[in-house]
Amino acid sequence: MQNKVGLAGEKVNGKKAAHGERKNRQVSSKKTPSKKTGSKKKSQGNPVKIAFLGGLNEVGKNITLYEYNNEMILVDCGMAFPDQDMPGVDIVLPDFTYIERNASKISGIFITHGHEDHIGGLAYLLKVVNLPVYATRLTIGLIEAKLKEHGLVGKVKLNVVSPGDHIKTNEFDIEMIHVNHSIPDALAFAIKCGAGTIVQTGDFKVDTTPIDGEMIDLARFAQIGEQGVLCLLSDSTNAERPGYAESEKKVGESFDLLFKKAGNRRIIVATFASNIHRVQQIIDAAKALGRKVALSGRSLENVVAIGTQLGYLNVPENLLIPIDMISRHTPSQLVLITTGSQGEPLSALSRMAFSDHRKVAVGAEDYVIISATPIPGNEKMVSKVVNELMRLGAEVVYEKMYDVHVSGHACQEELKLMLGLVKPKYFIPVHGEQKHIRKHAALAEGFGISKKNIVVAENGVKVELTKNSLKLSGSVPSGRVFVDGSGVGDVGSIVLRDRKHLAQDGLIIIVATIDSASGEIVAGPDVVSRGFVYVRESEELIEDAKRIAQKTLDICISDNIKDWGSIKSKLRDEISHLLYDRTKRSPMILPIIMEV
Amino acid sequence: MQNKVGLAGEKVNGKKAAHGERKNRQVSSKKTPSKKTGSKKKSQGNPVKIAFLGGLNEVGKNITLYEYNNEMILVDCGMAFPDQDMPGVDIVLPDFTYIERNASKISGIFITHGHEDHIGGLAYLLKVVNLPVYATRLTIGLIEAKLKEHGLVGKVKLNVVSPGDHIKTNEFDIEMIHVNHSIPDALAFAIKCGAGTIVQTGDFKVDTTPIDGEMIDLARFAQIGEQGVLCLLSDSTNAERPGYAESEKKVGESFDLLFKKAGNRRIIVATFASNIHRVQQIIDAAKALGRKVALSGRSLENVVAIGTQLGYLNVPENLLIPIDMISRHTPSQLVLITTGSQGEPLSALSRMAFSDHRKVAVGAEDYVIISATPIPGNEKMVSKVVNELMRLGAEVVYEKMYDVHVSGHACQEELKLMLGLVKPKYFIPVHGEQKHIRKHAALAEGFGISKKNIVVAENGVKVELTKNSLKLSGSVPSGRVFVDGSGVGDVGSIVLRDRKHLAQDGLIIIVATIDSASGEIVAGPDVVSRGFVYVRESEELIEDAKRIAQKTLDICISDNIKDWGSIKSKLRDEISHLLYDRTKRSPMILPIIMEV
Repeated sequence: MQNKVGLAGEKVNGKKAAHGERKNRQVSSKKTPSKKTGSKKKSQGNPVKIAFLGGLNEVGKNITLYEYNNEMILVDCGMAFPDQDMPGVDIVLPDFTYIERNASKISGIFITHGHEDHIGGLAYLLKVVNLPVYATRLTIGLIEAKLKEHGLVGKVKLNVVSPGDHIKTNEFDIEMIHVNHSIPDALAFAIKCGAGTIVQTGDFKVDTTPIDGEMIDLARFAQIGEQGVLCLLSDSTNAERPGYAESEKKVGESFDLLFKKAGNRRIIVATFASNIHRVQQIIDAAKALGRKVALSGRSLENVVAIGTQLGYLNVPENLLIPIDMISRHTPSQLVLITTGSQGEPLSALSRMAFSDHRKVAVGAEDYVIISATPIPGNEKMVSKVVNELMRLGAEVVYEKMYDVHVSGHACQEELKLMLGLVKPKYFIPVHGEQKHIRKHAALAEGFGISKKNIVVAENGVKVELTKNSLKLSGSVPSGRVFVDGSGVGDVGSIVLRDRKHLAQDGLIIIVATIDSASGEIVAGPDVVSRGFVYVRESEELIEDAKRIAQKTLDICISDNIKDWGSIKSKLRDEISHLLYDRTKRSPMILPIIMEV
Repeated sequence: MQNKVGLAGEKVNGKKAAHGERKNRQVSSKKTPSKKTGSKKKSQGNPVKIAFLGGLNEVGKNITLYEYNNEMILVDCGMAFPDQDMPGVDIVLPDFTYIERNASKISGIFITHGHEDHIGGLAYLLKVVNLPVYATRLTIGLIEAKLKEHGLVGKVKLNVVSPGDHIKTNEFDIEMIHVNHSIPDALAFAIKCGAGTIVQTGDFKVDTTPIDGEMIDLARFAQIGEQGVLCLLSDSTNAERPGYAESEKKVGESFDLLFKKAGNRRIIVATFASNIHRVQQIIDAAKALGRKVALSGRSLENVVAIGTQLGYLNVPENLLIPIDMISRHTPSQLVLITTGSQGEPLSALSRMAFSDHRKVAVGAEDYVIISATPIPGNEKMVSKVVNELMRLGAEVVYEKMYDVHVSGHACQEELKLMLGLVKPKYFIPVHGEQKHIRKHAALAEGFGISKKNIVVAENGVKVELTKNSLKLSGSVPSGRVFVDGSGVGDVGSIVLRDRKHLAQDGLIIIVATIDSASGEIVAGPDVVSRGFVYVRESEELIEDAKRIAQKTLDICISDNIKDWGSIKSKLRDEISHLLYDRTKRSPMILPIIMEV
């Protein structure tokens, strides 16, 4: 593995000095002389290749591989949440085959920000290939927590970088650019190589009044744009939404207003654990009213601990109390911050709604704010939680009733602004479903980028770019690897197909023991069912199934059929006909024949 | 069963004469003299009872029972679609127990309109209790189609009514009032009895420019309001939405615009089959451009046939062509209307999107309009279909991009208008989830109805009303009856729990044959798994499970344990420990022991 990376950290302009404060805290990696100039000359005219291993036509598992000459770098390594058609699956990972195959060429993994869809696959990847990771301080903090869970602490080289830094490798110069997003410390990358500069925005928005005071570094995007950008890869999540994403500050104003409306009631705010700025604003609003704050939800506790420790979260002394202590305070003295803003069944808010929380009993004395928008697919779960909270008597503020949430992703005007500053020759919309990517492509076309210079890519696609050409160059292994429990990849399409079949109509087991010498049935046939019908009310049907099984076996025996495969398949056919006739259902039929 | 119902059909005011045209077509039921006056005197002061058998805290299976003295009537009999936590369930019915128990008291079922959540349970109910049905002509047409499927044609007395009609029974006078909705021929009811008048709006909106030219009969609501209304039961579906629902006509204007934008491409419009006005507008827009129209989807074909036959749909001659004939026309000559606007996996549009439609291959020559909003819970399915259609190269217009859909339910201003016209003493928001009902209640309170006169009810609640009092009077059996295949009610909570368990982690069967005399294992133990792991890659684990099973059985035998229950439970414990240790999963463990 190549490890000749250097941390140049040069200031790119005067404005960057503002980041100096953070720079001092950074963990510096080995400083080796840059070989950039040399390789640049050598590789003039060679293409840069971009392989999409995830994140296209889906929301989640973002991971992009860049290749120039004989070197590769990775950007992000996310996970995705399972769809409804993946029952039992906990998380979905990218397929790492192509990375494993090229491990020796890869000089590092560059992470844009600390959201699960950008870091959630990292621990799994690092177990297979040990590569140095580059990310900002908060992102590294969040990654460390993950590595801890996976027993990887100390085994991986984690490098803290800051906006304005450059990481120079043999073939690449990766520059970190500050962007706004729904988590602090998010980056875009300007990736320079012999073929030109590629800007990958990561997830971003333009927040002119961000909570941490640092607006996205539009000036640097403009400078890089002036110097000439070969290709832009930009966040498509909100490409369908016109206008601008609202500032995070707007949510703070809503909190101030709503917290007053709550009167003497206890305030419960549900939000994404990783949205540290949101948590800060809840804390600020609580402080203003002299309320104490308690946290519920493991991920929230983790993030607040990391955020406070690293200085991203400013929590006044004695404001935070353990959730066990809330009974010592009146409702009017309390704000609870909780996970579960997506209605996740096991989350703290869900437990509160279904009266299953060990510490919090919700009632008419509660004022609940759900400070999030349901992610597509979660709408009904969120509604259920809202409905249950209301049935308990709580007042619930949710969705678009007030400005209790703003998006972290750029809307159309911001996307056009990015296009206008970066002025890329080629454009590849990333991070989104087909509809988002297409809309973003159309936006770029409307903006003046020629259609032939826009790629609507897919996972598994490899794009080759030179100063004057863009082409698709074959495909790479991509796809979905399922994590279920501690198993990675041992649940595949056959297992899922069986699970879905079992979920639809349940199963019927036909079991019989046959004397292999005489061919006689010595025990059974018995019929066992699960998830099919309520057996006590369907005894007749089960008895009929038993009779049919007996008859089928008798015929097989009298026909001297001794091939278990044929007997099982006859049993399956006969029983499934009977059951379909009688119930119009097709349970899984599992014949088991034992020999003595 | 009481059958002394009469169809008075008196005109209530001059304006009602406009409905006379329809009146002539109505099937008149037996005219018996009204006993209203007599019973009115007798029952002065007696309460009217309203039992909610469905439709509260849910979207679907609307059914309400009214009781006065010794008589009952039913309003609507709908079904609901299953939630994600009801795998394999096809539809959900109300619990008919209370109706069966009181069948002899019920004089009829009054249907507001022909949507599934108002008529979908009717055929199932009519199989158990044969009651006369009252509904408008189109609604009866749609009900007849359902009865046909269930072999009930000719067995049930279907009575066509029209706006302005009164049905007078011993204790009740039910007046039909025309309302606007997303299906023609929708009704509200003014239900008069000795205790007072109750107005049940059904699903409604105020459309001042409806497609069929007949605006909701606000004048009649006002008159009834002037005469004094005891209680209003009103549609809460859109209680969260401020303002007014847009007119259906707006969608027609969008179609005109979009059909031109489609240029020479084939136009495919997906919508709800029952939205006859929408279908009419698609047909009109197609006709204006000289395009032929083909239909895809069984429910759409049914509704168009019924709608045309009954005169609700005006289809110019030679405009409609069979879907088989589309290959004879160029894309620019065609409009396809299709089902599947909710992304339903087996629908026509889904088949088109996943290149699985026998007649329609979608590509760059297609311009697809999804003329519907995803029903909560369907968002992701709709997105999938949109994404796939786009990947095939089609342009897709969906959701809020243009005004291609308007809601059929009243928004806040309309709800307040209804409250203002009807001026009820008591108010019960119905038809919606808890959040809709609560919002509607708050709206009414803001409007001036005293909080103590508003009931936030639940399924199973029975409310008692007199001129001066409102109280909850016990509960009635309500709940969910699942239909799976041809089985009604044979899938319950245990079956669903098993299905969900099987879907999560699959199952492991441990099977062994034991000689009951000697206690020896004569065959097995064998381990069979489904939906758990990909077996070929987990042979070692399965072998270990087999070994553990063998060991457990050996111990049981040597301990002389002969109780199969204990042996099975030991097997279950041991195997489940092993599997959880190794995989962090908990499949269903099914030990089967056979005796010889």
